[in-house]
Amino acid sequence: MLSKTAEYALRIMILLTERKKSSQTAKQIARATQVPPGYTVKVLQQLGRARLSKGQRGRNGGFVLACDPEKVHLLDVVNVIDPLARIVECPLGRADHQHSLCPLHKQIDNAIAELEKSLSSMSLQEVIDSGESSSLCQDHTNSSAELSIHATG
Amino acid sequence: MLSKTAEYALRIMILLTERKKSSQTAKQIARATQVPPGYTVKVLQQLGRARLSKGQRGRNGGFVLACDPEKVHLLDVVNVIDPLARIVECPLGRADHQHSLCPLHKQIDNAIAELEKSLSSMSLQEVIDSGESSSLCQDHTNSSAELSIHATG
Repeated sequence: MLSKTAEYALRIMILLTERKKSSQTAKQIARATQVPPGYTVKVLQQLGRARLSKGQRGRNGGFVLACDPEKVHLLDVVNVIDPLARIVECPLGRADHQHSLCPLHKQIDNAIAELEKSLSSMSLQEVIDSGESSSLCQDHTNSSAELSIHATG
Repeated sequence: MLSKTAEYALRIMILLTERKKSSQTAKQIARATQVPPGYTVKVLQQLGRARLSKGQRGRNGGFVLACDPEKVHLLDVVNVIDPLARIVECPLGRADHQHSLCPLHKQIDNAIAELEKSLSSMSLQEVIDSGESSSLCQDHTNSSAELSIHATG
């Protein structure tokens, strides 16, 4: 029920959290997360506008985390890309439902609330901490080689 | 987090449940649920293929409920239109995640499971029973007049 783009953004934020000590080029990010390169750039722009990540110029340029991964939850990332829309008013515009939704829309809203609750129960850091580093969903092929090349400029 | 079409389908199924004693024309359904007429026909076709509703020909023709509203839950209707996709395998295709998702995808899957659970906790009949008939999200303007014209055909 999350859009593909929101899921891509989560993969990217988890990668930036895991590798927060060094900046990552868009190419490295795309390769490690297996997010298509065009999408990667688009998502990084959206994350940057929301100040969750930032780009750095220069020799060690690339993208780094720009938030506290213990305070940013999965829901925050999803809401940057495709905000979960709670039902705040009657979709049919009925005046008598203005302050109280009908049973159907109340139940749909409850369901969205459950989705929100679950996504807000885990921070980026908790995702990292809850698994072995090696079990995170990333392609580690050549990533250390790339990083070493990058670090020595 | 539900598609617009899924939400329309829920409105239509609730209407057919509430009016299960008489068939409803697509026009009546569109008007009462305020679902655009084109969408109404499309959704009725999908609901018909899933045997949740059926069309009847003849003088009292129209659409009627074709399922037990106590046994069909909101989730069943949503799944006819836009099935909620649980994450059953690693989206990156990692072999070592084949039997165990990474912490990120496990958490996303948990969130989708919560959405499913909430939508499957209420049957169509329970939606009707949990509100006054008049509080259901429908436009009742002229509906009784229409029904009476229809019945005397």
